[in-house]
Amino acid sequence: MSYLSHLEACNRFDPERFLPLRLAGRRVGFVRRDHARQLEAYPDIFRLSREAAALVDAIRTPAEATAALDEASDRLIRAGAVNARRNETFAVTDGWGGATLFEIDRGMIEFFGLRAYAVQLNGWRPGDDGPDLWIAKRAATKATFPGKLDNMVGGGIGAGYSASQTLAKEAQEEAGIPEALARRAHAAGAVRYRTEMPGGLRDEVLFVFDLETPAEFTPCNTDGEVEDFRLLSARECLRRVRKTDDFMYEINLVLIDFGLRHGLIGPEEPHYLRLVEGLRGALARGGN
Amino acid sequence: MSYLSHLEACNRFDPERFLPLRLAGRRVGFVRRDHARQLEAYPDIFRLSREAAALVDAIRTPAEATAALDEASDRLIRAGAVNARRNETFAVTDGWGGATLFEIDRGMIEFFGLRAYAVQLNGWRPGDDGPDLWIAKRAATKATFPGKLDNMVGGGIGAGYSASQTLAKEAQEEAGIPEALARRAHAAGAVRYRTEMPGGLRDEVLFVFDLETPAEFTPCNTDGEVEDFRLLSARECLRRVRKTDDFMYEINLVLIDFGLRHGLIGPEEPHYLRLVEGLRGALARGGN
Repeated sequence: MSYLSHLEACNRFDPERFLPLRLAGRRVGFVRRDHARQLEAYPDIFRLSREAAALVDAIRTPAEATAALDEASDRLIRAGAVNARRNETFAVTDGWGGATLFEIDRGMIEFFGLRAYAVQLNGWRPGDDGPDLWIAKRAATKATFPGKLDNMVGGGIGAGYSASQTLAKEAQEEAGIPEALARRAHAAGAVRYRTEMPGGLRDEVLFVFDLETPAEFTPCNTDGEVEDFRLLSARECLRRVRKTDDFMYEINLVLIDFGLRHGLIGPEEPHYLRLVEGLRGALARGGN
Repeated sequence: MSYLSHLEACNRFDPERFLPLRLAGRRVGFVRRDHARQLEAYPDIFRLSREAAALVDAIRTPAEATAALDEASDRLIRAGAVNARRNETFAVTDGWGGATLFEIDRGMIEFFGLRAYAVQLNGWRPGDDGPDLWIAKRAATKATFPGKLDNMVGGGIGAGYSASQTLAKEAQEEAGIPEALARRAHAAGAVRYRTEMPGGLRDEVLFVFDLETPAEFTPCNTDGEVEDFRLLSARECLRRVRKTDDFMYEINLVLIDFGLRHGLIGPEEPHYLRLVEGLRGALARGGN
């Protein structure tokens, strides 16, 4: 295992196995070919060809696309193609900061291979051997990745929320961080990856924030999703990244990014540039 | 002017105007087509075609390539195609951390469009409005970009030097930073750009380091290349990046990277992702 192997594991995507999903001529997602065949049953919503799955021409405005994809979601869930709604709405935009093209339930994001945005908060404080990081252990009862090590705080950006609003909300819910402390977090960049998942494709941007936590602070989970928090030196975290799969898959990337920004991984690392660039989309296939 | 316009200005490269320079089947540089025609005069060294300028097949080993390109450099300087040697040798490698393919005088790097590596050291200390940065003003007598604002320390990585060795050497020469202080600098990532220059193509990676300087420290230039050093708030530096061309062209990128890592530019910036990715090669044309 190596740093690079985690980046590669998070960028396993064969565009040949997918069709671009188009809305009004613009690619908005990627649908796996076997999933696309299921969309043929809904010709009022989708037009399938060899090259693409497209929303039909009559669907153009955000309201029309939102309504059509909502209807499609219902049908796909009834047909058993998708598990369930998550009852949380994500906005699909024309690039980060761009206009909203439509909104859709979070449970549909992977099926349609839509770009999603999330925040990640590294909680750290000075330790004996460089920074120590607050690491969460996911509850054994979590539906996804139970028992894996996780970052202190992370969460998807829902429709209508900014990155900082999401950060403050998740910091409170996941780690009991009061708003005044969360406001001291600072943006530190972004990590991007695109990888096939059993449900389709995950195409995600993680906005990364750092927060130096005061000595008297200990995170405290309030939503039952975390078994415990422990303070691990960032060097030990990176050792585990290199040697184990203890961490949730995308958290490895967030830790590598932390190590790169804080000088724990330096240019003497042979794959240094591939890591720096690979964390920012250089390994993502299928174009922008 | 905007952050993004500086990234675009540093990634102006039309591959159609250039030929790939190949050595033993591998692309090692880009030669402008009018320059490539000058290489036709040296058929013992170069084989020109519509698609590429290649070193002849007999040249394969690093020693052979180094000797042949040294001879070509002499001829090109005599022919007036290149100004002069810089009497500093750069290693052209098979990617960062890869084997050395050949060594060549720094004065030839742009003509052949070879990948070069450099270090940049941000010297900062806590200020009233976030971090303050030590900024140099280039001497009026400098051959290139006289009077422009520059980073505290920066310099190309010569053959046989590591990034940290270059950093320590340049920190001493350019800013009088003692070795013990320079060792406290930490790696913080890399910035990459590829842009046409009057002499050819600049294809450069800047390894970025941060150094928190103690309150009693003031940089002191020892090689006569700096008129003065001043402490400017990073916010003021970024305002000048957005509004002026006060800074040397690639220093704008280094300052934007500093702003991204230190939370002075956050995800609310509309081009946030294009900046994060554009600093790591996403805007560079012509492949890897």
